[in-house]
Amino acid sequence: MKTIYFTPGPTQLSPGVYRYMEYAVKRDICSISHRGKYFQALYSEATRNIRLLMNIPPSVHIFFISSSLEAMERIIQNTVFESSFHFVNGAFSKKWFLFASALGKKPEKIEVDFGKGFNLASITVPKHTELICLTHNETSTGVSVPLEEVRSLKVRHPASLIAVDVVSSAPYPSLDFSVIDMAFFSVQKGFGLPAGLGVLLVNDRAIQKSQVVSRTIPVGTYHTFVSLLAMSEKCQTPETPNVLGIYLLGNVCRDMLKKGRETICRQTDLKADALYDFAGKSKTFAPFVLEKKFRSPTTIVLSVPNQGSSRVIEDLKKKGCIVGSGYGVFKESHIRIANFPAHSMRNVTTLIRGLKSFETLL
Amino acid sequence: MKTIYFTPGPTQLSPGVYRYMEYAVKRDICSISHRGKYFQALYSEATRNIRLLMNIPPSVHIFFISSSLEAMERIIQNTVFESSFHFVNGAFSKKWFLFASALGKKPEKIEVDFGKGFNLASITVPKHTELICLTHNETSTGVSVPLEEVRSLKVRHPASLIAVDVVSSAPYPSLDFSVIDMAFFSVQKGFGLPAGLGVLLVNDRAIQKSQVVSRTIPVGTYHTFVSLLAMSEKCQTPETPNVLGIYLLGNVCRDMLKKGRETICRQTDLKADALYDFAGKSKTFAPFVLEKKFRSPTTIVLSVPNQGSSRVIEDLKKKGCIVGSGYGVFKESHIRIANFPAHSMRNVTTLIRGLKSFETLL
Repeated sequence: MKTIYFTPGPTQLSPGVYRYMEYAVKRDICSISHRGKYFQALYSEATRNIRLLMNIPPSVHIFFISSSLEAMERIIQNTVFESSFHFVNGAFSKKWFLFASALGKKPEKIEVDFGKGFNLASITVPKHTELICLTHNETSTGVSVPLEEVRSLKVRHPASLIAVDVVSSAPYPSLDFSVIDMAFFSVQKGFGLPAGLGVLLVNDRAIQKSQVVSRTIPVGTYHTFVSLLAMSEKCQTPETPNVLGIYLLGNVCRDMLKKGRETICRQTDLKADALYDFAGKSKTFAPFVLEKKFRSPTTIVLSVPNQGSSRVIEDLKKKGCIVGSGYGVFKESHIRIANFPAHSMRNVTTLIRGLKSFETLL
Repeated sequence: MKTIYFTPGPTQLSPGVYRYMEYAVKRDICSISHRGKYFQALYSEATRNIRLLMNIPPSVHIFFISSSLEAMERIIQNTVFESSFHFVNGAFSKKWFLFASALGKKPEKIEVDFGKGFNLASITVPKHTELICLTHNETSTGVSVPLEEVRSLKVRHPASLIAVDVVSSAPYPSLDFSVIDMAFFSVQKGFGLPAGLGVLLVNDRAIQKSQVVSRTIPVGTYHTFVSLLAMSEKCQTPETPNVLGIYLLGNVCRDMLKKGRETICRQTDLKADALYDFAGKSKTFAPFVLEKKFRSPTTIVLSVPNQGSSRVIEDLKKKGCIVGSGYGVFKESHIRIANFPAHSMRNVTTLIRGLKSFETLL
């Protein structure tokens, strides 16, 4: 019985990954110089495929970094003198806020209970806000904030930059770079790849801001926006990067392009509907996020009765399905299910069958 | 004909790497949770093996980061209020000095021409120096500074912390942690692994300094020493790390332990002697580093006549040997040859034969 990983990252690998790892071995991808033409070609292919897949305009630069936590740090460092504003509704949005504090800024926030979302169109941000930080999909709670409403924020706060964490949702959300200035994700979630590589998208406006900030305060060393940009123009990175990761990402994005983002999104919706539909009718499990509008299609968090997530997880494991425990204080009261492109409808059906069979044990 | 990579990192992979990648695939290493027991076991094995191999005492903590450039940044951020002192004799030691400036510190330096070394026992560092930064092995020029002399620095400057870059020499040098406070390397050089993982060694004294510094100025976010330490005590990392890289490193270190560090060092010396001996007698090539004491055993840089490194590199490639070009301004006038544990004496003999046959073409 092949185990299926529904953990919200690292997770089930995308179908082609093992084959691409074999290619990488045969082609000495792990030995080639990161300053040579062969690497530049891999880099160029990876960024081209990401750009096509996620519909990223030429004014937005694609940088490779090491993780999404690094992205949070670099964004604050590079684009904020003092005031960032954070929408906090889970562990990761909170972390971003705390990062800004740790970097000596004076961040502000609007905070709601874990499991709640934000109606962006009705929230006003302080006028002096330099950067608005938004977590599209809270991996900790399964709350997704509809990105269509970001435009309304932008219209009311044209001077602020907007950065969006799409860590556990990319490539699902359609990112409108006429309103968003920065976004980031890491590859071990929606792209179904081994962990150890982050992708940071930065537009010219954010680069310009980083140039202004850097005139007054330190904005970092090898991974300042300016340093990342200069190297990216040569199809290189400032450091020796995760070359294998970049190669694998380029290949997985090519496969996704062949399938088409629309197909991937439609399948994601169908699988999410199946899971939420099951949980909605279940007497044992229930969607943690009550308001349907805020339910994440890519990270489905279910409440489990009697602090019993370990029992559910153990039982599902016997049936070949690995799901995540709840995050932090919810460890025992939630299970978390990733619904990424690497998970087929067949996988999801197997999982639902497992959940149903657990119900009969009670 | 199998190609041998003598490039100074990324380089020839260690013999077991492909097999361990296959194991990783079979054991779902790329899908497991970085917060679970399985990962903690991998982490624990990797750090145990590194500790044994490099003879690292319990008072020194082993942190996984993303690259050696990150190590340079984190060391300055965490342990310096104002004054670091740098021994600059190549591109990487210079970079470290510039990083300190970029972070708003007031670094000082002693600088010698590229290709020259330092007699540490005769150099006095300003009294107010908080951190002495030393590059053991300049990957750019092939200069190695004898670490035995670090003790003399320490004796004369007991209040300063000492950090040593062993990026392109580890695991060769014997590190004396009674005088050194921090060291770092990345895995794509002496450990013959795919790039994308750095290892930072930090003792309690440096941790304490970082706690003092952090009371006054920002020292970072997820990768402060305190954050790295707290997570390392749980056999975890603050971010989702390069899990595959950590797994591979643990395995390669186990293989090296089986072979024995002494054997590895002896073989390194024999191979280095063979290369320097050839170059010393050659009418075409010459060791770039004139003073024997400073010649690196792990990065051998040879001068090539008439700005002709491309021609040498192309010719060697036909013979199955990939060597590096010179670094920066030396691109055309040097070739750089890695002599890491993954390179066998047989490989080196093949390379010397290739170099000799190039000579006959002239």
